[in-house]
Amino acid sequence: MDIAALLTSAGINIALCVVLFTLYSVLRKQPSNRIVYFGRRLASVQLRSNNDDPFSLERFVPSTSWLIKAWEATEDEILAVGGLDGVVFQRILVFSIRIFSIAAVICMFLVLPVNYYGKERQHKRLGAESLDVFTIGNVQEGSVWLWAHCLALYTISCSTCALLYFEYKSITKMRLAHLKGSQTNSSHFTVLVRSIPFVPGESYSDTLKKFFTTYYPSNYLTHQMVHHSGVVQKLMDEAERMCKMLSAVSSDGGSLRPFCFCTSSTLSFHILSDQPESVDQPESVDGSIRYSDFEVAPPDNECPVAFVFFKTRFAAVVATQMLQSTNPMLWVTEQAPEPLDVLWSSLSIPYKQLWLRKIATLLAAIVFMFLFLVPVTFVQGLTQLDKLSKTFPFLRGLLKKNYINHVVTGYLPSVILMLFLYTVPPAMMLFSSIEAPVSRSGRKKSACLKVLYFTIWNVFFVNVLSGSVISQINVFSSVRDIPLELAKAIPTQASFFMTYVFTSGWTALACELMQLFTFVCNLIKKFILRNHEDAHDWLMSFPYYTEVPRVLLFVLIGFTCSIMAPLILPFLLIYFFMAYLIYRNQMLNVYIKKYDSGGLLWPVVHNTTVFSLVLTQIIALGVFGIKDSPVASGFTIPLVVCTLLFSEYCRQRFLPIFKKASAQVLIDMDREDENGDRFEEIYDRLRTAYCQIQLTSHELRPGRAGTRVTDATEDIPGSGGPKTGSFLRGVLRWARFMCPLRRAES
Amino acid sequence: MDIAALLTSAGINIALCVVLFTLYSVLRKQPSNRIVYFGRRLASVQLRSNNDDPFSLERFVPSTSWLIKAWEATEDEILAVGGLDGVVFQRILVFSIRIFSIAAVICMFLVLPVNYYGKERQHKRLGAESLDVFTIGNVQEGSVWLWAHCLALYTISCSTCALLYFEYKSITKMRLAHLKGSQTNSSHFTVLVRSIPFVPGESYSDTLKKFFTTYYPSNYLTHQMVHHSGVVQKLMDEAERMCKMLSAVSSDGGSLRPFCFCTSSTLSFHILSDQPESVDQPESVDGSIRYSDFEVAPPDNECPVAFVFFKTRFAAVVATQMLQSTNPMLWVTEQAPEPLDVLWSSLSIPYKQLWLRKIATLLAAIVFMFLFLVPVTFVQGLTQLDKLSKTFPFLRGLLKKNYINHVVTGYLPSVILMLFLYTVPPAMMLFSSIEAPVSRSGRKKSACLKVLYFTIWNVFFVNVLSGSVISQINVFSSVRDIPLELAKAIPTQASFFMTYVFTSGWTALACELMQLFTFVCNLIKKFILRNHEDAHDWLMSFPYYTEVPRVLLFVLIGFTCSIMAPLILPFLLIYFFMAYLIYRNQMLNVYIKKYDSGGLLWPVVHNTTVFSLVLTQIIALGVFGIKDSPVASGFTIPLVVCTLLFSEYCRQRFLPIFKKASAQVLIDMDREDENGDRFEEIYDRLRTAYCQIQLTSHELRPGRAGTRVTDATEDIPGSGGPKTGSFLRGVLRWARFMCPLRRAES
Repeated sequence: MDIAALLTSAGINIALCVVLFTLYSVLRKQPSNRIVYFGRRLASVQLRSNNDDPFSLERFVPSTSWLIKAWEATEDEILAVGGLDGVVFQRILVFSIRIFSIAAVICMFLVLPVNYYGKERQHKRLGAESLDVFTIGNVQEGSVWLWAHCLALYTISCSTCALLYFEYKSITKMRLAHLKGSQTNSSHFTVLVRSIPFVPGESYSDTLKKFFTTYYPSNYLTHQMVHHSGVVQKLMDEAERMCKMLSAVSSDGGSLRPFCFCTSSTLSFHILSDQPESVDQPESVDGSIRYSDFEVAPPDNECPVAFVFFKTRFAAVVATQMLQSTNPMLWVTEQAPEPLDVLWSSLSIPYKQLWLRKIATLLAAIVFMFLFLVPVTFVQGLTQLDKLSKTFPFLRGLLKKNYINHVVTGYLPSVILMLFLYTVPPAMMLFSSIEAPVSRSGRKKSACLKVLYFTIWNVFFVNVLSGSVISQINVFSSVRDIPLELAKAIPTQASFFMTYVFTSGWTALACELMQLFTFVCNLIKKFILRNHEDAHDWLMSFPYYTEVPRVLLFVLIGFTCSIMAPLILPFLLIYFFMAYLIYRNQMLNVYIKKYDSGGLLWPVVHNTTVFSLVLTQIIALGVFGIKDSPVASGFTIPLVVCTLLFSEYCRQRFLPIFKKASAQVLIDMDREDENGDRFEEIYDRLRTAYCQIQLTSHELRPGRAGTRVTDATEDIPGSGGPKTGSFLRGVLRWARFMCPLRRAES
Repeated sequence: MDIAALLTSAGINIALCVVLFTLYSVLRKQPSNRIVYFGRRLASVQLRSNNDDPFSLERFVPSTSWLIKAWEATEDEILAVGGLDGVVFQRILVFSIRIFSIAAVICMFLVLPVNYYGKERQHKRLGAESLDVFTIGNVQEGSVWLWAHCLALYTISCSTCALLYFEYKSITKMRLAHLKGSQTNSSHFTVLVRSIPFVPGESYSDTLKKFFTTYYPSNYLTHQMVHHSGVVQKLMDEAERMCKMLSAVSSDGGSLRPFCFCTSSTLSFHILSDQPESVDQPESVDGSIRYSDFEVAPPDNECPVAFVFFKTRFAAVVATQMLQSTNPMLWVTEQAPEPLDVLWSSLSIPYKQLWLRKIATLLAAIVFMFLFLVPVTFVQGLTQLDKLSKTFPFLRGLLKKNYINHVVTGYLPSVILMLFLYTVPPAMMLFSSIEAPVSRSGRKKSACLKVLYFTIWNVFFVNVLSGSVISQINVFSSVRDIPLELAKAIPTQASFFMTYVFTSGWTALACELMQLFTFVCNLIKKFILRNHEDAHDWLMSFPYYTEVPRVLLFVLIGFTCSIMAPLILPFLLIYFFMAYLIYRNQMLNVYIKKYDSGGLLWPVVHNTTVFSLVLTQIIALGVFGIKDSPVASGFTIPLVVCTLLFSEYCRQRFLPIFKKASAQVLIDMDREDENGDRFEEIYDRLRTAYCQIQLTSHELRPGRAGTRVTDATEDIPGSGGPKTGSFLRGVLRWARFMCPLRRAES
């Protein structure tokens, strides 16, 4: 591929992005699209509808106000609307911008000239120049200039480690602050007990009560059994009938109120009012009617699963960390997920099946990974024109045209690959569902890991190796040669990765901004089905399991290409900038936060980044080997060792915080609550926190889940934002953005 | 190698064994050797010396009474003298005898004839028959008789899994019983705290006290700081001086009494009397003099390490399982080892170094493993006569002689390998010491694992692969071909493994029985240095780290050779029988039990056995592939999958018991003690349990460590044992021995 083909590809994608951005800035101002583009805000506050006048001119003028707003949002705002997970996602992007800015500077000004003038050759005019001229492949064997690459590698490695350390430190601190700040979180007091043994003549509830009153007498508060979902469905139907009856009787017969099904010792129903106080004190507040001793759900419909509530957070954590009985497959305890995070459907699955399910899913995912090779290999074939014209002889005439040539080699391959890749996250999500995790966030994290491994394997390794070596079987059978093969392949595959950045990076971001699928659904609903009510069940939480692997793949591509083919870095930097702004905008406006895992994704990100860095170093080792530079190779080996040691240190220093809660923090929180006499209030809330009946989307407002809604009074569409870009503030913000030290130390 | 060479090798070893056994049965009756052959008994009871008469005839007649005694010892006796670890070691041998009896029956009667008549060929007379005729290599390609091998594989796999399951179950039960039975074990109440943070102006002791009184106020009892070993040494010297002074003053100026250095809040010295009561109530009993407020060890000599004592076992385990502070590298807690198990020297090593030390040791062990290839390859060369005569032309005449030929090919290689292998356990022990584990049992377990990996790699894999393939580098670079290579190599290497069983199995057992090294030392001491006192510091605990890997290597060889070269099985069975008797004898008579890890080695044994089984199945897969039997291959694949699933199930079902203590058991034990008002007594014992000063060997008597000494009144040398072997009792015992079900269910 030459520069012209690259520019064709870039041009197509830039045009697409500009069109989509313009469309977005117009469409977002249309009131009918509010549910698509302002779902989160709609859920948290009723929008003032000052733009309902259909003929205001402003509505049809493209604007960039949303970009400025996204840029100006502070981290606290992101924390409020996206939770710690949202902030962690933003920090991945900030980290990427920082490290690739450094890499771009050193590689564009030091490495690129060395590559370009590496061999004495007649350079063509820039447009027809092959991209290979800009890669390390153009450097003479045994050249002393390989020192430049070695120096660049050292700089990049050291800055990556330093930045990673400060990010890990600051995210650990945020996680601790998040833990300390979530005083009202019911899950801290709750333990999920699975695999309660069956005792003849006793209900599971009795067995459980007996066990915990025996072994945790001073800390056991109460418990709530989980019922088979069929039973719960029946109950819900019954409840709905009852509600209709009630609302017909009561005078304020308004909206359908949610029912909460709670069982501590007796099973009982009560209606929650919209005021949050009624949740706290259901007995005493008006508007809540309690039907005690409502006889439903005979004990034989209980699952051997329960939520057990403890009096203190410390006691709950102790119960989760201990092995309870002499049979490790009975009385299995784990920290309960947040109430809205619970995946009720998987709780009724017997605990003994879980390990089998996990193994089966793992095998299925691996098989899927390898079957995916077929389309990828086909796609890769498309980049080689002569192969294509051999396979499809009737295309030969067409392919001779220069323009078609550029499109086919520069653009088509990554589009097809991207389309195939869209099937991966749903498939992995399905696999993760079969694993039966207890929480939605757990399912997402598991899917995220699967998608990540899948992407790194199928997009990175298979493309690199299949593009350079004729027979894949040979590649996989000789482990020792992989670094050398990679070293040969990366520079030649750089052009593919560049087009991949354009399509899967830039254009996919624009599509994400447009929310094409939701937009079309909304269009169909409002203008064909003529249903003008906003459907709140469309509201989604942020799809970390697709976006995190995507960003991390670009980080991997960036690292491995940095010193081999530095031309990719500016394009990647543009991607990360756009991603930073667009994802901010989406978090602020589109996605709602149902639950918060407290930044559990960061260790995954950290490990993947370290993996990328070490892979880069190993590839560099191979390249230095090919280029006959034993000194440069010799200097790279200690770098690999030091990076691995750094990674191990971080694992020792920070990882436990993401695995276990610290006794000190928990006990301090418990004491604070004890001194403030808040325990009674917390206990009351606990009893009603976990509702097996699915709440309607109306109840999923972030306001209810305890987040601070800072933008409640703001008017959203067409408010225009700050009219003049105050330059100085922008500069200050930029400085703050690029400096990791201040943030980590503050 | 042919049958004759094999028989030569067997003959040499049998002769050696008979000589050594006869020598042993005479030497053990000599009073001067009592410390060598009855060390454990000497430590636990003063032997009646009825054989001191130097001219009794009985003393010089070889006898087999020791064999009968070893056979008749019950498991309870082994438990009493060797602890649960000793029983677990015995169970490895029992398991091996059971599984290889089954394998021997099916392989000798089904597989061996199939192999022998596998190809239509002229069979020579048996003596000159090559050993290859008895291996699977002799079976025709595509033979239907490969079904016999497949059936044998199924039988062996299923019985192994069943036996492993019952063993794991029964050992888990024993571990729980051991835990419940060790009411007096101080380590249950004790937590080892490392990496206490330094607070300016405060001693570590104060910081620790403040922390634990803040966060564990109701359960914290007291603590004991660890001091730098230099300080302790100084203290000990001072104590010895003081003791001499005291013994000069007091009238019963006898033996040197042990000093115990105990610091709870003030540092104090007191002398322990020989009566165990004085340990329990040091304040009130006569014979114990306490020097309170003895001002030694200024706070700046404290290490940031302490033993913290809790009021209940449950509280101690809670403290070990929790992450204490927000910095995971501070306040690191772990279950304290038993008092005699503590490795004081490694406690003063800063916690922050540990991860680095572990990595360094790992790398060093791997390098050692690969450097070891050099002698092994040389040794392997000796089995090929033509190679040898090329290297040393002057030997050519000698090597032509038939007898020398037999010795060189059949015996010498494994002797040289064995001599080299003797350097491995000390090296691995050194590596494990550098890792700075807190307990002797931890160090032994770590060394055991290292020796195990080493043995499996260097004795098994390298021998198999280097013997069959010319260039080793090629082997290691192609992962995919390893099963095929193994399948080709195992049958041809069977003769090497047989001779290895003779030398490293049979003869090494006889040497173990003879205790050659200690015997020679004793001889030198008594007859050259003329020192007739028995030195108690010679007493050793059982060397699990050398013996467990050795036995497991034979298990691996047995499994992999079983269907490939079944001729090895009878020899292996003889080895396991001898090992069973000899190790029993050694446990009863020679080795003392200083501490008990509670069967922690069993999961290692289980995993290694499953690994051996799966390796066998994979090799069988390769063999069936070579022999063109796709059906047999197809039937083997589900076997591999099922074995792996079985292993995973065991990991889920039993392994947690070996990792964590169960809350139920601990709380029950605490309640029992509370109801029996035994806590005060336990607390008193706790305060003096951990003594940093090395006790003399005199104090290491098992009787003090709380074991039941059942054989106290027995007379040991020359008592003759039961004169007539009651045949019926023997048969009953045999039936009990071979039936795993009864034992597991009881």
